[in-house]
Amino acid sequence: MEQLFVIKIGGNVIDDPAFLDRFLKEFASISAKKLLVHGGGKIATRLGDQLGIESHYVDGRRITDESTLDLVTMVYGGLVNKKVVAKLQAEGCNAIGLSGADGNVIPAHKRPAGQIDYGFVGDINQAELRLEPLQLLLDAGWVPVMAPLTHDGSGHMLNTNADTIASCLAVLLSRTYRVRLMYCFEKNGVLSDITNERSVVHHIDQSLFDRLKAEGALAAGILPKLENAFAAIGQGVQEVLIGHARQLLANTGDSVSGTLIQA
Amino acid sequence: MEQLFVIKIGGNVIDDPAFLDRFLKEFASISAKKLLVHGGGKIATRLGDQLGIESHYVDGRRITDESTLDLVTMVYGGLVNKKVVAKLQAEGCNAIGLSGADGNVIPAHKRPAGQIDYGFVGDINQAELRLEPLQLLLDAGWVPVMAPLTHDGSGHMLNTNADTIASCLAVLLSRTYRVRLMYCFEKNGVLSDITNERSVVHHIDQSLFDRLKAEGALAAGILPKLENAFAAIGQGVQEVLIGHARQLLANTGDSVSGTLIQA
Repeated sequence: MEQLFVIKIGGNVIDDPAFLDRFLKEFASISAKKLLVHGGGKIATRLGDQLGIESHYVDGRRITDESTLDLVTMVYGGLVNKKVVAKLQAEGCNAIGLSGADGNVIPAHKRPAGQIDYGFVGDINQAELRLEPLQLLLDAGWVPVMAPLTHDGSGHMLNTNADTIASCLAVLLSRTYRVRLMYCFEKNGVLSDITNERSVVHHIDQSLFDRLKAEGALAAGILPKLENAFAAIGQGVQEVLIGHARQLLANTGDSVSGTLIQA
Repeated sequence: MEQLFVIKIGGNVIDDPAFLDRFLKEFASISAKKLLVHGGGKIATRLGDQLGIESHYVDGRRITDESTLDLVTMVYGGLVNKKVVAKLQAEGCNAIGLSGADGNVIPAHKRPAGQIDYGFVGDINQAELRLEPLQLLLDAGWVPVMAPLTHDGSGHMLNTNADTIASCLAVLLSRTYRVRLMYCFEKNGVLSDITNERSVVHHIDQSLFDRLKAEGALAAGILPKLENAFAAIGQGVQEVLIGHARQLLANTGDSVSGTLIQA
């Protein structure tokens, strides 16, 4: 199977123009097939403040009312996505920016209001994703750049977590590619000692994860990332890498500087 | 040659949600191959006012400084483009929203500053446009929805007039399709009496145009549209239609309610 990198970058990269430029230069230089999923960054919040759109969070998750949906559609789907695409094009990488509505790449469902009404937030049903649209673009040598937006098939855009989009697409594409799903963040990887960036656990499997978790050795922030990673592996993704956005290229080979989880 | 409609809608459609819904429903129902180019509408100006970004115009053309470029990238490339795509998807039309940067569909050049510096405005060199990317999407059954944005190949987005994008793409695609380029606006067509919407000139050729112009029978606003139309015909476009956005379907057949110009 041909190799494919599904690479997710978060707001910390988006919010730092010099860092973003460097990251995109490295991303463009990866010769294997690749796909980028970007988060939103702080621009939406800053712009929302200027426009008098208040940000509401419950348990660290933004509540997406109609004004907020317009805001994130503009910022994630327009400003951030097109800037990233233009910069990649300048590096000779034939990027094509997409939301989940474009080509119906990621159909989703508005999350039903339970105890908390998250508003216009889209949940993805893995079984509804179709391989053909992305396959077509990848076969043509294009590099999809995904904004964290989906749609409900009834005319509405929806706000969807970028980590979730990355893992759903990785699962989908693992049917025809040998996928390495890469979560690029602001730590060097899974650390056995949160105060020491050199304590990277380079390889972790479910039993080591369970042990480290039971020992309380892992930082709270890394737990959902690892849960997601093992879930992706359980659904067919061949490899998941958790590492620093500054070490993208050091994490694309066989010996990695971050944390690699293999099926 | 297979038929292709290259359809341009302006701000008057974008700014009226009920009208836009109706237009997109009709657009989706066109069974031939098609491509939509949309303008920006007043949302960018309204949002710019809220954000303290002043709009500057010279001779009716917006000057695009860096803040304005960010604004139109957000609004045209994000908010408007993705809303249109989501609505078309809801009508069963497999739309894919693109700026000129996506897939390098429309490379452009920043207009050199002369007596007036228009800022980040992109001019298109017809000879640099490549047919393959759009051809690939159209062959796959997708319906491209183009925002009025291009890029300079050096990492910057550029603001480009939607009429210009529509005519450049029509010229490009006329190599492999029988193209009808349709300018949908707020008049029924070219009127021989500007006060009478029933005075539509259904067919016009260069000599009739020259005569009507010499007689002063044509409204000033329609002159650049007609100049563009004849220029497109001169470069290979088979048909140009100028008509009302409310009469889209009445203008897709052989007998039209608007003004048809044929090569």
